[in-house]
Amino acid sequence: MTLRPEQDAYGQMLLAALDGAEVQEIVERDDGFITASVFGPTLYLAPFRRWPSHHRRGMRFVRGRVLDVGAGGGRVALHLQERGHDVVAVDISPGAIEGCRRRGVRDARVLSVEDVDESLGTFDTIVMYGNNFGLFASRAKAKRLLRRFARLTSERGRIVAETRDVHQGADPAHVRYRRRNVERGRLPGQIRIRVRYRDLATPWFDYLMVGQDELRELLAGTGWTLERTIDSDDVYVAVIGKESR
Amino acid sequence: MTLRPEQDAYGQMLLAALDGAEVQEIVERDDGFITASVFGPTLYLAPFRRWPSHHRRGMRFVRGRVLDVGAGGGRVALHLQERGHDVVAVDISPGAIEGCRRRGVRDARVLSVEDVDESLGTFDTIVMYGNNFGLFASRAKAKRLLRRFARLTSERGRIVAETRDVHQGADPAHVRYRRRNVERGRLPGQIRIRVRYRDLATPWFDYLMVGQDELRELLAGTGWTLERTIDSDDVYVAVIGKESR
Repeated sequence: MTLRPEQDAYGQMLLAALDGAEVQEIVERDDGFITASVFGPTLYLAPFRRWPSHHRRGMRFVRGRVLDVGAGGGRVALHLQERGHDVVAVDISPGAIEGCRRRGVRDARVLSVEDVDESLGTFDTIVMYGNNFGLFASRAKAKRLLRRFARLTSERGRIVAETRDVHQGADPAHVRYRRRNVERGRLPGQIRIRVRYRDLATPWFDYLMVGQDELRELLAGTGWTLERTIDSDDVYVAVIGKESR
Repeated sequence: MTLRPEQDAYGQMLLAALDGAEVQEIVERDDGFITASVFGPTLYLAPFRRWPSHHRRGMRFVRGRVLDVGAGGGRVALHLQERGHDVVAVDISPGAIEGCRRRGVRDARVLSVEDVDESLGTFDTIVMYGNNFGLFASRAKAKRLLRRFARLTSERGRIVAETRDVHQGADPAHVRYRRRNVERGRLPGQIRIRVRYRDLATPWFDYLMVGQDELRELLAGTGWTLERTIDSDDVYVAVIGKESR
């Protein structure tokens, strides 16, 4: 999967923010629900000291060689590089990867999560920050990618991923959406969205948010187990380790 | 023309802002260009001292009984009421009119610009602020409404309206849009847009922005003449008076 230039709404938004523009991240869901936020673009470029505290705390569980999935503006890769880690940053967005490189990420590649494979070598930690657990997309894809990530990681391998416990939200529009998902046999927090920026729009993609019970269910049989969570209101960082055999 | 509740994106956005929420105004153009801004919602509720200076200066030209077209959050109506004017505020958005009433606008009515007629009585000044000259929509509709406004106003009647001189903008996406308009026989600054908020979207509507030469051309033969402009970068307040016979 590669993005055509007119599909790189996320990357162009990031590059504009990097150039100092005040940008909004506009996210549209397939039921017509739309939001705009300045929070995203600010966070994507934030130095470690400005990260939310659960993001900072999650970094304590990172060790060894790191794969940063959905690297965005490169904040995680830059921080871990500074701490001396060998980091490979991947993102489906060419603009995001251009931004990573401009900001000093040494190994940044345009690559979707589906295309992550053994050719990148073995990792000790896979980071999926800023809600990027979502890139697992759906129950079936999550199972498949988790099994692949198990093969790509060392025996002490970890996944450090952030997601949102959608069950804590009572907004009627979201409750309706979750109910429709369940009726269709999907996990309630599987949303179909796209990012828009000016006249650019990403393709529609699935983004998965899970509560902790759902997370455990997803991990079952994939070689991974939930070691701990770092909670912050309705989002949390999951520290996921290799299952002992 | 009336709006169904799920079409009142603008009004619900305003009411949320009035309740203290940090809202963004998302405006989508029919070529897919989309923007989000916190500026709009802030301005719509701003007290006079916080208005841009060309808005404040334009108020000097208001006299007598006032019709506030596209009253939004009621800031113009409230200011003029305080100054002792008799003001009728109209807006197509039921949420906006609810907001006007909550904020103390004494005569606020759900009414689209097309439905403004003699039943409202005679006015000395018609105000179309915050780019609301745009509600004239197109060359043909502007001519028709301007003639009607001439009949609805006293001999010393005025229109005090803000618009944007689109010709000053060099953004390629906008240049392309203007060129397409001209090819279709439209004024370059006629944009087709809708406002979106959460899962609500207004119907698509035409919004007209004109340079000063185009404005003079529109006024010709309608009973109105351009008396002065108050410029501020690429926007300006036009003070439009009755043509002497």
